[in-house]
Amino acid sequence: MDLFSSAEIGHKIPKEQYDKEAPEVREQLLEAQLSAVEMGKFATLIVIGGVDGAGKGETMNTLLEWMDPRHVQTFAIEAATEEEQERPMMWRYWRALPPKGKTGLFFGSWYTAPIVDRVLKKIDGEDFEKRMQDITRFERMLFDEGVLVIKFWFHLSKSAQKKRLESLQKDPKERWRVTPEDWKRFKIYDRFRGISDRALRVSSTAHAPWTVVEGGDSRFRNLTVARAVLEAIKGRIATKGEPPPDFQPAVPLPAVDRLNVLRTLDLSQKISEPKYDKLIDKYQRELALLTRKPRFRELSVVSVFEGSDAAGKGGAIRRLTRALDLRMYRVIPIAAPTDEERAQPYLWRFWRHLPRRGKIAIFDRSWYGRVLVERVEGFTSEADWMRGYGEINDFEADLAHHGIVVVKYWLQISKEEQLKRFKARQAITFKRFKITEEDWRNRKKWDDYEQAVADMVDRTGSRYAPWTLVEANDKLHARVKVLETFVERLETALK
Amino acid sequence: MDLFSSAEIGHKIPKEQYDKEAPEVREQLLEAQLSAVEMGKFATLIVIGGVDGAGKGETMNTLLEWMDPRHVQTFAIEAATEEEQERPMMWRYWRALPPKGKTGLFFGSWYTAPIVDRVLKKIDGEDFEKRMQDITRFERMLFDEGVLVIKFWFHLSKSAQKKRLESLQKDPKERWRVTPEDWKRFKIYDRFRGISDRALRVSSTAHAPWTVVEGGDSRFRNLTVARAVLEAIKGRIATKGEPPPDFQPAVPLPAVDRLNVLRTLDLSQKISEPKYDKLIDKYQRELALLTRKPRFRELSVVSVFEGSDAAGKGGAIRRLTRALDLRMYRVIPIAAPTDEERAQPYLWRFWRHLPRRGKIAIFDRSWYGRVLVERVEGFTSEADWMRGYGEINDFEADLAHHGIVVVKYWLQISKEEQLKRFKARQAITFKRFKITEEDWRNRKKWDDYEQAVADMVDRTGSRYAPWTLVEANDKLHARVKVLETFVERLETALK
Repeated sequence: MDLFSSAEIGHKIPKEQYDKEAPEVREQLLEAQLSAVEMGKFATLIVIGGVDGAGKGETMNTLLEWMDPRHVQTFAIEAATEEEQERPMMWRYWRALPPKGKTGLFFGSWYTAPIVDRVLKKIDGEDFEKRMQDITRFERMLFDEGVLVIKFWFHLSKSAQKKRLESLQKDPKERWRVTPEDWKRFKIYDRFRGISDRALRVSSTAHAPWTVVEGGDSRFRNLTVARAVLEAIKGRIATKGEPPPDFQPAVPLPAVDRLNVLRTLDLSQKISEPKYDKLIDKYQRELALLTRKPRFRELSVVSVFEGSDAAGKGGAIRRLTRALDLRMYRVIPIAAPTDEERAQPYLWRFWRHLPRRGKIAIFDRSWYGRVLVERVEGFTSEADWMRGYGEINDFEADLAHHGIVVVKYWLQISKEEQLKRFKARQAITFKRFKITEEDWRNRKKWDDYEQAVADMVDRTGSRYAPWTLVEANDKLHARVKVLETFVERLETALK
Repeated sequence: MDLFSSAEIGHKIPKEQYDKEAPEVREQLLEAQLSAVEMGKFATLIVIGGVDGAGKGETMNTLLEWMDPRHVQTFAIEAATEEEQERPMMWRYWRALPPKGKTGLFFGSWYTAPIVDRVLKKIDGEDFEKRMQDITRFERMLFDEGVLVIKFWFHLSKSAQKKRLESLQKDPKERWRVTPEDWKRFKIYDRFRGISDRALRVSSTAHAPWTVVEGGDSRFRNLTVARAVLEAIKGRIATKGEPPPDFQPAVPLPAVDRLNVLRTLDLSQKISEPKYDKLIDKYQRELALLTRKPRFRELSVVSVFEGSDAAGKGGAIRRLTRALDLRMYRVIPIAAPTDEERAQPYLWRFWRHLPRRGKIAIFDRSWYGRVLVERVEGFTSEADWMRGYGEINDFEADLAHHGIVVVKYWLQISKEEQLKRFKARQAITFKRFKITEEDWRNRKKWDDYEQAVADMVDRTGSRYAPWTLVEANDKLHARVKVLETFVERLETALK
């Protein structure tokens, strides 16, 4: 699960739904645009970047059709003109900036050159990092100057991109869209993805966050982007054109097709008891061997268990620790912070529990509290949990950079399964203490939690600290998947 | 003139002044500290970095003496302990963070390792840039969490550092302070300075700006740092411990010795008329030749003229352009922005005038208006002009990066000379239009302008776009210096 995972799950909108919703969105968008024109207090800058064949051009044309083109300035990346080449790189973008009241529609942007140049190794890593810094400072300046910047990254999985290029090529009317250049770029898809990942991560600032959009279905793309633009413009009009005090919240992706990473899970997955016994035994044995390797003493592991209430985190943790030497691991249950912890920055209480080399720290709940319970229950302001994602990413990058293996689990059960477990627990005295009033209250906010979890997975999944989503309706399946993943991650790290 | 220039002008405080002021500052500092302890709402983190031999340790000890040490946690960079080595780099700093109410005094910090490692080429440029990004994000997090971060960089010029090391070595009681390591580092002073410059530039953010302090005189150092800390703590107490909405303004260096870069100028410099004629002729001829070289067609030049009112900018510009082909240059007088310009971000109206290759753009007044007249007259909020420095630096870095030669002049006259010129102009009809009510008004704010100019030179001088301060009481001297500098910069660029 990484930055792009949510844009690889096959978002789609049926034609009937589109035909019904599109005209409404279109009308509202036009209205919002004209209010912004009339107000004349802020410029809107829509940036669309992403992989080839993900429909950037088509969606741009749709937006242009839906808005009043007299108040839209479009800009498309092409080879720089002679005029442009003679000025600093950013000159062409400054030239194209929309004035207050107007909208700029940028097809490609200041990201294109650094990413492509880095992919083709025309610039080195140092140059790339510097240019990313220049860009974040540039966008910060735009924010400070009151420009509403909305950035979309259109994504396609490798296989989807291939399919799309092939199908375009088959269609005589569309064939012209596919150039040899496109195929050449397809061959370096993985490198492109890696570098884009870095670029998006660095430049997804509080002032100009990215929104990643799955590019496979044009109806989904159009509605998603148009709705997001609509919300952003409406938001700015509501504050009379003034930018928010310090950060521009990412436009939450309108769930136009009600699909998210959690809903793509097949919760019916099951495993039989004999098979479970065999597998648990196998992985525990493997784990015991792995952690006894001399090389293991140079590593450490930080593991995070998050999940719905009653999803079985405790049981899964016990199956894991059973294979470990007691001196080797610590389980750290995260509850309310102590006084001492409250007097420090949020992440301080997690930093203090980082393991030494050769040790494993297992967090039963974790720093993700900020973007889950604190967000949903309103314990933290939006500004604070919004910046939480970035701080968590920085924290985990620090860990990974130091050679700590970060293994993160989200255990998911269905709403029905949760109800069953709550009731069962109430019936059994010794488990009773586990169900509290709070659990029932949380349950009422099921949808809010689901949204928070989906956002969390989108924004904090990474190569170096990926999320593993565990289908936990069947406890046996869940425990095996947890152990199996743990063993795999360790094996890779010890290679 | 660069980032460090103001810390190379020989700041000093006489003993009598120190003996009088130090006890007052000390008492107030202690009081402020104890109020912060009582309030318990924010932690204060004082970071002292800089070159060897600039008195970091001594000043830290003074601070520690002046404050209540029970509420101060000190941290000194040493080789990481075994415990620390086994955790990510930042762990040792997290560990040392002061809780709310307390003060952390960091002797060396998270900057030390990246700078030293880069100087010794243990890490490459990409790594260095990434670590700088990590640091700015870390400090941003501290800001968001309400920590008051105050960063001082102690500077010594190369010759001052050498003198200091030698004098320490001569004193039997102080000799131990100088290690062979210090001399080894002295040998790479220039490299260290270049890399520190980059580090400070990148990390002098709105949330944790640097204050550069000249390290030569211990009385100056102590008073300056103590006063700056005092002001910062008082400021935070005044807002009941809440951080400012978006940025932490740099603590203005209290001018404890009333010295600044402008006051170090020798305005009595003069040149005789025959010599003037000879030199102007010489440089105009050289300039004409230089701009006719084929290589010149690959360059462009952006020149900025700023100066006190009546300092003679126009005359100096004319002496310059006289040597140039009319098709080659444009003089761009900067007045109030047009409607179209007002609808764009501040720098837009300067970007639009950037020259093509082989051309020269001469700005008569410039983007520095934001941090001069707009600041002094209160046309712009503090938040806006404070971010102006960074935006201007980014802008000029873009220019330089593209191969544009940036030549910036500040023409300085004395207050008396200005009065003489104002009166003379009023007497001569054809120059009369040049003196307005506004000029007289500006004159009343002489000291505010002087402070703004000194800050501007400190914060926007750079290797790639250095300021040339021109002593302009004698017009002939000024014109020659302007032309001479222009020729020199072009010669270097054409090499």
